[in-house]
Amino acid sequence: MIKAERKAGGPVLGDGFGEALKECWAAGGKAGHSYATVERDDGFLFTTDVAEYFDELDEHERHEQWVIKRAGGRVLDVGCGAGRHAIALAQRGADVVGVDTSPGAVYVSRQRGVRVLRGTVEEQGDDIGRFDCILLLGYNLGLLESCQKAPQLLSGLARKANVGTRLFGNSLNPAMTSHPDHLRYREENRRQGRLPGTSRMRIRHKNLATDWFDYLYLTPEELGELVVGTGWEITEIETEGQSYAVELTLTQAGRRSPTSV
Amino acid sequence: MIKAERKAGGPVLGDGFGEALKECWAAGGKAGHSYATVERDDGFLFTTDVAEYFDELDEHERHEQWVIKRAGGRVLDVGCGAGRHAIALAQRGADVVGVDTSPGAVYVSRQRGVRVLRGTVEEQGDDIGRFDCILLLGYNLGLLESCQKAPQLLSGLARKANVGTRLFGNSLNPAMTSHPDHLRYREENRRQGRLPGTSRMRIRHKNLATDWFDYLYLTPEELGELVVGTGWEITEIETEGQSYAVELTLTQAGRRSPTSV
Repeated sequence: MIKAERKAGGPVLGDGFGEALKECWAAGGKAGHSYATVERDDGFLFTTDVAEYFDELDEHERHEQWVIKRAGGRVLDVGCGAGRHAIALAQRGADVVGVDTSPGAVYVSRQRGVRVLRGTVEEQGDDIGRFDCILLLGYNLGLLESCQKAPQLLSGLARKANVGTRLFGNSLNPAMTSHPDHLRYREENRRQGRLPGTSRMRIRHKNLATDWFDYLYLTPEELGELVVGTGWEITEIETEGQSYAVELTLTQAGRRSPTSV
Repeated sequence: MIKAERKAGGPVLGDGFGEALKECWAAGGKAGHSYATVERDDGFLFTTDVAEYFDELDEHERHEQWVIKRAGGRVLDVGCGAGRHAIALAQRGADVVGVDTSPGAVYVSRQRGVRVLRGTVEEQGDDIGRFDCILLLGYNLGLLESCQKAPQLLSGLARKANVGTRLFGNSLNPAMTSHPDHLRYREENRRQGRLPGTSRMRIRHKNLATDWFDYLYLTPEELGELVVGTGWEITEIETEGQSYAVELTLTQAGRRSPTSV
């Protein structure tokens, strides 16, 4: 066997996720052609056939279908990817605006007819308006990131919402794993003062890798604690195996962002 | 974004390929469940749905079907994986012995009824006997590894063969790529004195990664030069896009291995 002498550089910093989506889109969204590899910082790889980002509504996980049937009106789709949720909702009459930080995701979802703004939610000005529903689907409750970041993001979303606006998101319940590597990873998170379901990871595709980022898997109970003081309250939970979707409702008006006062 | 502070250790050294095969076998060999990720040492990732290692003969690439139709008799299948070629040949009446270094591959192919010896060909004693056909399929001409290793492996295989024995292998023609990363990688190989189609890589699956190893993609012309003096001659080539299969025939008797004199 060869001693590892990695070539200088390693993967190129870039939009690994978006390029995988573009490749899959160019191949007609078919399975078996394009993969995105999530690399956790302990070296664990999770491989996704990105064709699933092009799934029709009846192929979505059941708890995501539950969300689509409940959502509607003016909808903000945070991290819209290839637009599968936005398209399903638009077909049901909703008025959807997507946001995504991935240039490739923005390209593909626009090609598919979705109105999409590039960047984070926080980067969008108040002129984006307020929404009846906000989506953090595709496990995008993960964007809550940490105890520190979650209240900021939720408060930011409250400023795009009215009292009564519902926020739908989903997660994997990290307490339900029994895989020894995941248990070890949870323990390491605890020791470092992070929530146990934190996943420090990057997305790789061919020669590309995104920056490392923290993605948060959390129990419904942990979510309940994180929403305190943000104006949001958990009003419904729909469970499907290790996955669950949650409906939050805004019960107190979000304050306008400081920059717009 | 987070600064990369990789956790100590990274992936665990282990049988990433074999564990992916075992996982896929446990799931009935179905597509969309188990992936093996080949990581080249410049950071380029190649993802394979390992269900293809369970393909039936009519799903094999056409140039591999061409081999299966020509092979027979007593067959040595080098790097037999999950046994797709061995099984196809056994169904056509051949008497096949597989060898594989991956414990997981040995486990799965035995479960599927293939007679398999664990280890490299070089590690097998002369009691394995001599063969009418030798297979280096699944792109296992890559096991020729380098200018230095190739004559050793080919001479070793000649000692498991008789005059007239045919060796079938396949490769990707590395001169046919136009991907800038692959062109850059070829150039770097040249500068380091390696054959341009050398790929230094490891196979990753979940928490596991194999050791780094060199795998050789070569043009038919390069192969023609490497076989000189080994007793083998190229007698047929079957091309399919960037892939090709080759038939070598042993024209001079292989010497018994030194240890058995």
